[in-house]
Amino acid sequence: MIERLCIIGVGLIGGSLALALRKAGMVKEIIGSGRKAENLEYAVKLGAIDRYNLDPSVAVTDADMVVLAVPLGAMGAVMTSIKDHLNEDTVLTDVGSAKVAVVKAAQKVFGCVPKNLVPAHPIAGHEKSGVNAADGQLFKNKRVILTPAKDTDPAAISKVRAMWQNTGANVMEMEVSHHDDILAATSHLPHVLAFALMHALANSPQQKEIFRYAAGGLRDFTRIASSDPVMWRDICLSNTGPILEALSGFRGELDKLEHAIRTQCGDELADIFMTAGEARKHFLELLESTKSGSGSD
Amino acid sequence: MIERLCIIGVGLIGGSLALALRKAGMVKEIIGSGRKAENLEYAVKLGAIDRYNLDPSVAVTDADMVVLAVPLGAMGAVMTSIKDHLNEDTVLTDVGSAKVAVVKAAQKVFGCVPKNLVPAHPIAGHEKSGVNAADGQLFKNKRVILTPAKDTDPAAISKVRAMWQNTGANVMEMEVSHHDDILAATSHLPHVLAFALMHALANSPQQKEIFRYAAGGLRDFTRIASSDPVMWRDICLSNTGPILEALSGFRGELDKLEHAIRTQCGDELADIFMTAGEARKHFLELLESTKSGSGSD
Repeated sequence: MIERLCIIGVGLIGGSLALALRKAGMVKEIIGSGRKAENLEYAVKLGAIDRYNLDPSVAVTDADMVVLAVPLGAMGAVMTSIKDHLNEDTVLTDVGSAKVAVVKAAQKVFGCVPKNLVPAHPIAGHEKSGVNAADGQLFKNKRVILTPAKDTDPAAISKVRAMWQNTGANVMEMEVSHHDDILAATSHLPHVLAFALMHALANSPQQKEIFRYAAGGLRDFTRIASSDPVMWRDICLSNTGPILEALSGFRGELDKLEHAIRTQCGDELADIFMTAGEARKHFLELLESTKSGSGSD
Repeated sequence: MIERLCIIGVGLIGGSLALALRKAGMVKEIIGSGRKAENLEYAVKLGAIDRYNLDPSVAVTDADMVVLAVPLGAMGAVMTSIKDHLNEDTVLTDVGSAKVAVVKAAQKVFGCVPKNLVPAHPIAGHEKSGVNAADGQLFKNKRVILTPAKDTDPAAISKVRAMWQNTGANVMEMEVSHHDDILAATSHLPHVLAFALMHALANSPQQKEIFRYAAGGLRDFTRIASSDPVMWRDICLSNTGPILEALSGFRGELDKLEHAIRTQCGDELADIFMTAGEARKHFLELLESTKSGSGSD
């Protein structure tokens, strides 16, 4: 049971977490914090949070669990503002899509990585953002990856694990930089490609006609290009190395494909397309078996 | 009314066309042709076609409308086999995703572009292929683009137009090479990117983990990578110039994005992501207004 949960950043993820824990009856009181009073008022109306304070340093008062659900670029500033206001046993966690950056920010702010910090990444989301898109079922059957350090307090890990399990998620642990490599490939790279394609089409002199004649294939392919631009700017700025590496692998593949198209090498094209299709079939089977299908990143 | 319709290649598109026309009561008899008797037997069972002949030159006998629904690479061979067996007023059309290649194939086989040839492209499809995925509603509210030449017989154009209108599609005309440029951007490029990404992930040393931790974002992004490999090989071999040009535009965009990530230029990243998101919003509004949302290519 969480006695007093403080969620800083009550958007899609923070709001959905609040709704899920509320429904599970696993939290006594939820305090919100964020930059916009209007948004937090709305979160109170939704029943996601009990009350709020615009000042994070006040919002965290006597919280036994603090969740940072702000864009990655804001993590350091929020940590700075709350660091002298946490109790000794307050568990600190976050929901960022890149985890090395969160650990580094903590190291900088706290002088070392706090024993009570348990970085976490719920692999769930939506191309819609904001608390008005919040959904208490968002994490059901989704994966949540924890990336604790070797000397993280086991009690803190247990508490964060239990919190996410109460939302219906499958919780697992991973080494922090390994998390960032995997997510760069599975989530960050596809987002970058979708943004790049949509931007390329938007800037084409034939833009109007392109959109007029496009259909469902393009709609699905670019769904993730509707994701929150600030959140994705911060992911790109935070997980730079792994994203550039994943991009480089993709470029190698694109070079091969382009060469096969240019040289009219039909066998190679068919081979690449068939392998890709089979890999996707395998991926869908895995997705189906874990029932973690509807998340966005 | 079509008296005798011959569909060569009774797969997803050919089969769906047959089912739709049957339902509309706009065709008296439908003859199928193709390489696999088993597949054609199944099409008869489904009620898509009345009968079939494995030999296209026999199947077209006395047909007033012949639809070529084979992969682009097979168009020339099929045209060759039927060319001496068409009546003088038989209307010939196709459903290929690239149209210059079809016109060129016809030119080569017939010595000139036949006056009764009306190249057509239904912008509808599915990542599933084969007649077992056929659906009489597939073309409802979808666009079908006709690319007749200046001297195509107007009666032939009218007949093909009426056929597609009877499936519930919105029919329009476009200059043939313009069609290929637009489709390269809206459909062929996204398919190439989805295939390339899926192939890159499949070949990654971390493949197993990548698929294990991927979620709905990747599933939607790569849906089109499950499309028929032979069909897509042929599209790449047929619409090479426009696809390479679209790829080159995309690469320019990717270069910009990669540079912004590498140099940690947050403002530029946010700007690109925001423009992309707005463009997609605009595109979705257009898609919604035409109700042509569920097609795949």
